[in-house]
Amino acid sequence: MSAPKSLRQKMHELVFKTDTTAGNTFDLVVIGLIVTSVSFVVLESVDSIATQHHSFFQRVEWAFTILFTFEYLLRIYAAKNRWRYITSFFGLVDFLAIFPTYLSVIIPGSHNLLIIRVLRLMRIFRIMEMGHFVREGGIVVSALKASRIKIFIFLSFVVIASVFMGALMYLVENGHNPEIENIPEGIYWAIVTLTTVGYGDAIPVTGRGKLLASIVMILGYAVIAVPTGIVTAEISSRVLSPRKKENAKCLRCNNIDHHENAEFCYHCGESLEDLQD
Amino acid sequence: MSAPKSLRQKMHELVFKTDTTAGNTFDLVVIGLIVTSVSFVVLESVDSIATQHHSFFQRVEWAFTILFTFEYLLRIYAAKNRWRYITSFFGLVDFLAIFPTYLSVIIPGSHNLLIIRVLRLMRIFRIMEMGHFVREGGIVVSALKASRIKIFIFLSFVVIASVFMGALMYLVENGHNPEIENIPEGIYWAIVTLTTVGYGDAIPVTGRGKLLASIVMILGYAVIAVPTGIVTAEISSRVLSPRKKENAKCLRCNNIDHHENAEFCYHCGESLEDLQD
Amino acid sequence: MSAPKSLRQKMHELVFKTDTTAGNTFDLVVIGLIVTSVSFVVLESVDSIATQHHSFFQRVEWAFTILFTFEYLLRIYAAKNRWRYITSFFGLVDFLAIFPTYLSVIIPGSHNLLIIRVLRLMRIFRIMEMGHFVREGGIVVSALKASRIKIFIFLSFVVIASVFMGALMYLVENGHNPEIENIPEGIYWAIVTLTTVGYGDAIPVTGRGKLLASIVMILGYAVIAVPTGIVTAEISSRVLSPRKKENAKCLRCNNIDHHENAEFCYHCGESLEDLQD
Amino acid sequence: MSAPKSLRQKMHELVFKTDTTAGNTFDLVVIGLIVTSVSFVVLESVDSIATQHHSFFQRVEWAFTILFTFEYLLRIYAAKNRWRYITSFFGLVDFLAIFPTYLSVIIPGSHNLLIIRVLRLMRIFRIMEMGHFVREGGIVVSALKASRIKIFIFLSFVVIASVFMGALMYLVENGHNPEIENIPEGIYWAIVTLTTVGYGDAIPVTGRGKLLASIVMILGYAVIAVPTGIVTAEISSRVLSPRKKENAKCLRCNNIDHHENAEFCYHCGESLEDLQD
Repeated sequence: MSAPKSLRQKMHELVFKTDTTAGNTFDLVVIGLIVTSVSFVVLESVDSIATQHHSFFQRVEWAFTILFTFEYLLRIYAAKNRWRYITSFFGLVDFLAIFPTYLSVIIPGSHNLLIIRVLRLMRIFRIMEMGHFVREGGIVVSALKASRIKIFIFLSFVVIASVFMGALMYLVENGHNPEIENIPEGIYWAIVTLTTVGYGDAIPVTGRGKLLASIVMILGYAVIAVPTGIVTAEISSRVLSPRKKENAKCLRCNNIDHHENAEFCYHCGESLEDLQD
Repeated sequence: MSAPKSLRQKMHELVFKTDTTAGNTFDLVVIGLIVTSVSFVVLESVDSIATQHHSFFQRVEWAFTILFTFEYLLRIYAAKNRWRYITSFFGLVDFLAIFPTYLSVIIPGSHNLLIIRVLRLMRIFRIMEMGHFVREGGIVVSALKASRIKIFIFLSFVVIASVFMGALMYLVENGHNPEIENIPEGIYWAIVTLTTVGYGDAIPVTGRGKLLASIVMILGYAVIAVPTGIVTAEISSRVLSPRKKENAKCLRCNNIDHHENAEFCYHCGESLEDLQD
Repeated sequence: MSAPKSLRQKMHELVFKTDTTAGNTFDLVVIGLIVTSVSFVVLESVDSIATQHHSFFQRVEWAFTILFTFEYLLRIYAAKNRWRYITSFFGLVDFLAIFPTYLSVIIPGSHNLLIIRVLRLMRIFRIMEMGHFVREGGIVVSALKASRIKIFIFLSFVVIASVFMGALMYLVENGHNPEIENIPEGIYWAIVTLTTVGYGDAIPVTGRGKLLASIVMILGYAVIAVPTGIVTAEISSRVLSPRKKENAKCLRCNNIDHHENAEFCYHCGESLEDLQD
Repeated sequence: MSAPKSLRQKMHELVFKTDTTAGNTFDLVVIGLIVTSVSFVVLESVDSIATQHHSFFQRVEWAFTILFTFEYLLRIYAAKNRWRYITSFFGLVDFLAIFPTYLSVIIPGSHNLLIIRVLRLMRIFRIMEMGHFVREGGIVVSALKASRIKIFIFLSFVVIASVFMGALMYLVENGHNPEIENIPEGIYWAIVTLTTVGYGDAIPVTGRGKLLASIVMILGYAVIAVPTGIVTAEISSRVLSPRKKENAKCLRCNNIDHHENAEFCYHCGESLEDLQD
């Protein structure tokens, strides 16, 4: 028998929860507004459109800013822990999505920063917290989290390799190639090549440079396998045994890696019931 | 002792089945015609060829259209549920593959739409329903189906990231780069870069732009691992235990993940015979 | 107590076997010669080098041709089944590697075909039949063999998708883009884009074309995951349980997928000894 | 009760160990100095910066060289086996990072080789030997080690395929394409295409050349799956059963592939205690 809910409690459910019809509708409306407002920011950047409808775009911008300001204040009002919301990632994004318009009154041109509104699109992933989206997305997020150290080490290695190969390419091409005249340009070449993006703006022109580039490309071919291998291994381990807790440990003997449906520890016979989700 | 088959039943077997010699031959002939007709559509688009043999191409187009119209009517006649065939994907494609020629009598130029005939090439996959093609293709299709939510979430993320990074690149390059003069062009740059296609038409020209591009490329390097990981995990789980039904569940205790050759539920001893295929 | 070996038997061991010192040395010498001869063919294609040392290159070419002719005749002599060697892949390559030089006496210029000698480099993989190279390479080859139907289906799909998207791009860009003026050029664009090669020679120039290209790139991002997934799954299944025979089947009850170290069939108790390698 | 440590022992702990506070701090300081010195080498390569601050850069270079010389001598002094350190990879890199500055006194311009200092950045991975970095990085390194033969075979195949397809492209495009006028340029094209880098500098211009390129790209699409598959399989086997020793073998019956937490051999009952790590 729950006590009648206060206005603030009701607002909290509306604004922060996705498991009620009202909360769901609220989220959908907010995301619709975000997508529309981002579209306007994107369109406004196109000169031919912006100059033609300048005052229209300005009015739209203010309309969205006022709507989002209202939403921001509502979220502060409804938040269980107000300071925590304000300093959270989404709290900061919500603030930065309205601030530039107000700032542009004082400092003209600063409304360019409105593009931060794009980050609000991340709220789309909130909607996905409904139904089976949670589990599916959760697998990927959890796999990426588990891979983060390995991927960080790998990216460090790629950066160091890029610096080294960029410097090498500079030594080889320097004086022959107007696009690789210093080491930073060499590093840019190395990154563009190693990631197989290959714009074609900075390319080797000498024979020795092309030989070096060929070696870098063929080695890069093997290197690109590493991040894929890391992430795939983590996702695989989750897809193959989806219900296995990452750190499932017997509470008595601390053994891990139980059979995925085990009801008792394979080593000491302790019940594992509390570990199942 | 089956009753003698009606003409419609015989036609149904000929047109829709692949397990009789006649049905197989019919499919092969149809696919041969589709490949030939598509080749003519492709060749006709080459100006130097089309102007030289204009009337020949026109006659070929009408010949194929009449053949395919006959096939279309035959399929309607032979279909078990006619309305269902007409509104099915293949029914619509079959119709759209003949419609543009008739339309071009009234609206000249609309025969350009004949390229929809390319979609009829998908019937090639019908032929593959023979022999072991089914199981092999089935694994990939089933893995992609199982991955669809995860891949949809991932692609949403890529789109949002592209909008954000494209906007950022616009802020950095705007005014210096004639190829990135508005956010849509920035988004196009971001997509070309993140997917490692790297045409080289929209590229950063400022130092800060190249730095931003380098970061995007190196992060994209890790990101490309995600869809591969998702699909690989699903295919792996099918290749490693090919006969395991996706949702094999004990009929009595609802436990899943039985040994792939299990004849009895590992938990309650119920026979699993009906679950095996 | 084996009978003394005939000359032909000794030659057979020398030429076709890698498990004797002499056979090994013979293979290494042949591969050394192939690499050198290929290097000369490659160098001769460079105009500045070829014109300077024309007669030298001609003499080198004849020297290698005579050496390889001798080797070819030796192989025919030593082969257990001569006709089988002559019509085998390596037999044909061995012949085609010497034929163009002789042909160039009658038809000048045909020595260009000498580049077929490159294919002889495949003999390098013969050398790898030594030691642990066999098992390691065997895993990859066997995984690719097991994947071939799935990869063939996938590549068919990529080709059909390329035809369709190339035609679509032609409809969109036709008249605006000098690089995509007919469907074959559109298909070329689609292949360059889908495979993420992205030369940048055929690129969309209209807004609608860029939008279509963006969609193709993002979808292609997910598609590239499929072949990787297929091959990875097969390699994984071999690396994870390296000694499991692909088609290990109980000789009595035909059950497969035995425990990798099983000594008896898990279903009927039949000894599996003969299945182990 | 350990004996008091000699100065050399103390220095050894400071310089070569990461498990004491002092040793850790020393490593962090050294890495900080390396990053700074590399940044200066990179900046000095930019003409506009170098000419303006020439004498400043020269002084910085000498300062770092003297610091690193001191560090090098300290390492020699503190090393347990001095000759082994001097001839080790890091020993050589440490020497080559200071040598060019001294050499430039005799041979002007040789200080360009200072870029070898970039290799000293590898010491960053020493820092990672702390905490959980070891295990995470260890998985990737061990997976790459286990894949090295397979990847070497694969890269050999890619090189041979590149030579063959480059030669074929030369035969097709020779005389029509100023960028593919000899086989080395054809090989460069093949490598740029197969690795999906696709700079766009060497591209086919004839219809037949584009057809050949399309086939190479689509086949390359399947080929790129191989290294990923190899590395992923190895990483997967380590992530899925992280504690399984690669070559864990029962000491009595030589059986391998024990249950990852097994305490007794599944075949002969021998205790496996000594095999656990």
